[in-house]
Amino acid sequence: MTIIRLDPEDRWSEAVIHNKLIYYTSVPTNLENDAYKQTQSALAEIDKILARANSNKTRILEATLFIANKHDFTAMNQAWDEWVAKGSAPTRCTVQAGLMKKEYLVEIKIIAAVNQ
Amino acid sequence: MTIIRLDPEDRWSEAVIHNKLIYYTSVPTNLENDAYKQTQSALAEIDKILARANSNKTRILEATLFIANKHDFTAMNQAWDEWVAKGSAPTRCTVQAGLMKKEYLVEIKIIAAVNQ
Amino acid sequence: MTIIRLDPEDRWSEAVIHNKLIYYTSVPTNLENDAYKQTQSALAEIDKILARANSNKTRILEATLFIANKHDFTAMNQAWDEWVAKGSAPTRCTVQAGLMKKEYLVEIKIIAAVNQ
Repeated sequence: MTIIRLDPEDRWSEAVIHNKLIYYTSVPTNLENDAYKQTQSALAEIDKILARANSNKTRILEATLFIANKHDFTAMNQAWDEWVAKGSAPTRCTVQAGLMKKEYLVEIKIIAAVNQ
Repeated sequence: MTIIRLDPEDRWSEAVIHNKLIYYTSVPTNLENDAYKQTQSALAEIDKILARANSNKTRILEATLFIANKHDFTAMNQAWDEWVAKGSAPTRCTVQAGLMKKEYLVEIKIIAAVNQ
Repeated sequence: MTIIRLDPEDRWSEAVIHNKLIYYTSVPTNLENDAYKQTQSALAEIDKILARANSNKTRILEATLFIANKHDFTAMNQAWDEWVAKGSAPTRCTVQAGLMKKEYLVEIKIIAAVNQ
């Protein structure tokens, strides 16, 4: 069964597709911003990756959200609620954990269904 | 390939079924209690969801356990050991991370096989 | 659909195989060592498990790396970069979280494709 890697770099691949699933971890691209805007950015990156895989946010199965600071939970949720496909939302797990760039406030790991 | 969402709310779905797998994150419902009782509660929620998907705890493939305090590892394991299907246990990963309600002591994320 | 459990113990199974995927969490075996050597050890354990499942590191789909101390990110990456199958790397998510043995500096959770 074929493994398709999107943007494979030496250290990691941006996303990986196998057996009708895509595996992806999204980080924000606007590191100077607050948690609301970082979440918007990370979610926009998810939209882009899913589009490349002929999928979209209505097909996300699970999402694990890591936030650097608990007090950003409300801001993260605000961006999430504005973005999520209501009625087709994934199961979700959110925890506070340390992130690998000091500017990161949020990181979002997903598994989604694709048609490839 | 069909995606079945159990209890879809605006923000998230309680669980999601796709391609013979169920994705679910369980939280305790007895927030006034200790880690032993919270783990029992979270595991009972897993039993309920799996039953709704025509599955059960012998079909769990992986479990990721997040505990708020490292010193609750023993209490969490006690409830786990009393519950787990010995010989049919999932692979397991446990880390300490911050949880999103201050009363939460444990949160359990699973992927299990279903027959749907 | 069959579930194959590698080294099933009462509390957990070392790894679980189902529907062409293997689920596994690796911990280092050389607990007296630094993060570089612990990562080498955890990655060597991944190689061993994948070999038992007729798979190998070119078939890893996603990896979640938990490190106990952010300052070990560089040492962890050094061991990772020396080991990873360049061009066939998984998607990767790394966070700092508390680990369950005080000697643990790194823990690596993977999902990989197998031919079973």
